[in-house]
Amino acid sequence: MIQVAVLGYGTVGSGVVEVLEKNKAEISLRAENELNVKYILDLRDFPGDPYEAKVVHDVNVILDDPEVKIICETMGGMEPAYSFSKRALESGKSVCTSNKELVAAHGPELLELAKANNCNYLFEASVGGGIPIIRPMNYSLTAEKIEAITGILNGTTNYILTKMEREGADFAEVLKEAQEKGYAERNPEADVEGHDACRKIAILSSLMTGKYVKYQDIYTEGITKITAEDFKYAKELKTSIKLLGRSKDAGDGYEAMVAPFMIPDEHPLHAVNDVFNAVFVRGNMLGDAMFYGRGAGKLPTASAVVSDVVDCARHLGKTIICLWDKEEVELKDYKDTSKQFFLRVKKEDLENAKEVFNAEKVLEIIEGEAGIVTPVMTEREFEEKAAKLPQMITRIRMEN
Amino acid sequence: MIQVAVLGYGTVGSGVVEVLEKNKAEISLRAENELNVKYILDLRDFPGDPYEAKVVHDVNVILDDPEVKIICETMGGMEPAYSFSKRALESGKSVCTSNKELVAAHGPELLELAKANNCNYLFEASVGGGIPIIRPMNYSLTAEKIEAITGILNGTTNYILTKMEREGADFAEVLKEAQEKGYAERNPEADVEGHDACRKIAILSSLMTGKYVKYQDIYTEGITKITAEDFKYAKELKTSIKLLGRSKDAGDGYEAMVAPFMIPDEHPLHAVNDVFNAVFVRGNMLGDAMFYGRGAGKLPTASAVVSDVVDCARHLGKTIICLWDKEEVELKDYKDTSKQFFLRVKKEDLENAKEVFNAEKVLEIIEGEAGIVTPVMTEREFEEKAAKLPQMITRIRMEN
Repeated sequence: MIQVAVLGYGTVGSGVVEVLEKNKAEISLRAENELNVKYILDLRDFPGDPYEAKVVHDVNVILDDPEVKIICETMGGMEPAYSFSKRALESGKSVCTSNKELVAAHGPELLELAKANNCNYLFEASVGGGIPIIRPMNYSLTAEKIEAITGILNGTTNYILTKMEREGADFAEVLKEAQEKGYAERNPEADVEGHDACRKIAILSSLMTGKYVKYQDIYTEGITKITAEDFKYAKELKTSIKLLGRSKDAGDGYEAMVAPFMIPDEHPLHAVNDVFNAVFVRGNMLGDAMFYGRGAGKLPTASAVVSDVVDCARHLGKTIICLWDKEEVELKDYKDTSKQFFLRVKKEDLENAKEVFNAEKVLEIIEGEAGIVTPVMTEREFEEKAAKLPQMITRIRMEN
Repeated sequence: MIQVAVLGYGTVGSGVVEVLEKNKAEISLRAENELNVKYILDLRDFPGDPYEAKVVHDVNVILDDPEVKIICETMGGMEPAYSFSKRALESGKSVCTSNKELVAAHGPELLELAKANNCNYLFEASVGGGIPIIRPMNYSLTAEKIEAITGILNGTTNYILTKMEREGADFAEVLKEAQEKGYAERNPEADVEGHDACRKIAILSSLMTGKYVKYQDIYTEGITKITAEDFKYAKELKTSIKLLGRSKDAGDGYEAMVAPFMIPDEHPLHAVNDVFNAVFVRGNMLGDAMFYGRGAGKLPTASAVVSDVVDCARHLGKTIICLWDKEEVELKDYKDTSKQFFLRVKKEDLENAKEVFNAEKVLEIIEGEAGIVTPVMTEREFEEKAAKLPQMITRIRMEN
């Protein structure tokens, strides 16, 4: 029997205990050992909870118990999760986490610590919730040179954008409804401003390059400026608007960005709706592949954490290879990256805009304004041209 | 350095050599060792080929060389692939294969042999070509009780059906064109009659149950009877027609089937077109997940074989757990499985058919006939009712 501790008895932590209990038979078979939750760390008490007796308030009870081999860190946030994880790894206990902030900020350091102590730091649940993506990248796509990753990585924003598209509703309206339903947090900034997706694409980009892509270096834009009118143009262009995390080996350097993009109907990511997430990977031998599923939620996320626990149980005393070096990747300045743009201008600016942008397509579907699709150009070129159109209504990037 | 041999220098075999060469740097890092192709077994000579000097005609050269640790079996077919694989495993050499016929027929025996000899029998490339699916099932979905698997598992038939849908063309016409383009074989029976998809869903069903689902037990229907008219109804019903391999834990037993199904627009498998494949998995904690990519082709399939080689290199002398027991699963009689059906009848039979089938929906879009959607019923019930309508034009099952 292998003893496990869970740090943080919130949504994901209680899910981990539930998954371990409900699928005990299947999990024991796969882990080739029985797994038992010995401790649950939380500041609160849980009177009446079936696992009440396992709850402790002092992390040292767990860290000092040599029987505990695997720790699930489902606290979230930087501290005390960071200190607890370090101390656990230093004492040779493997750590499985859903904490994308911590992984994005300290991944390479914690991986190195795990290696030095013959244990593991695994983070399948940190990206894409229940979707298997970290392990497929580390264990399955091993014959590939990954050239690009494009992901719908945040369920809240995808839910909001899907609803805006279907109902013709505006952002603020849908956000309010999502908050009432519990699909968006009271303070939705981390989701709607793209910070959450940024952490996730930073982790995926690091695994793609084998080096350290810092989330602070990734240009990030959220969805708060997307309107019902934008979706009218998107529909006319046979596209949908999705918040994408994108990462690419452009040959002359690595690019990474988080922003809303128009995605064409025939792109596999186009059909990813509601709270679903998907990660689209391009390998130099494989071509395109996609991993799709529930990007959040108690049980899917907990299932990913438990899959890490099983992996740790299979590899007690042995560190599983994970190529994520401390060496930092210098990303290309986003202004030097190229793409097509869609922009909206006032009717009276249309002729000027067509000329300035060398418009490939013009749409006149809303009174008093027009939409324009530009040729491929760098962000810098776009900004220079846009400076000549101070009354531009909006611009959205295009994925092809 | 780890020495590798490739059995069969055809499409996939030459792809394996190409992938190992082109991505040497990435692969060595992931395998934590350099991999070198020492021998290529083929009956033919390859004068002028850069690997000409590695070609041997006698398998014993390979099997008797203690330096060779990993063998890629890319010959296909039952013999001599079966004998060679057994002898390799008996001598402690790991075998990585793309041979679905062999895996479906002798998987559990070869896995047992690998275990007895502390080596591995891996078969990522046998299902879904380049799509990571076998390893995610064995390594990632370890916290799940898998309840259902539904896959588009054959690229040739998906290409044909996609083209029929887009062009309103008939089966025979599109098949001919596909053969000319090399997307379908001269003898297309294995693909169009569903035998290939049957082997693949048998393998996935075995991994889902942990026991042995024999492909011979799976009810299989191909796509040869699907017509351009069927697609007109499909469109009207907001569905598409795809050849599915389906497997399900129905609570009272396991169901498995290969047949063309109508899939609704909103189902993630609906958007899987052309030669792409996808495997849709339902777990009891995870909910729905999908794995999508190129289901065939030289380099994608070779990439999957090489990912197995890397896994073997990481686990020399140690057998990786794969739950696939020799114990046979007794599948439910397909006649006892339930679903909705679509059927076409002659105009003069419509009133009778509506009554017999308790029609949920009637479509009159083609002169002289009508389409009917039935409620959910067993295949047995359907057959009994259909016996009262000897002039029924066709019936297609419906996925929901």
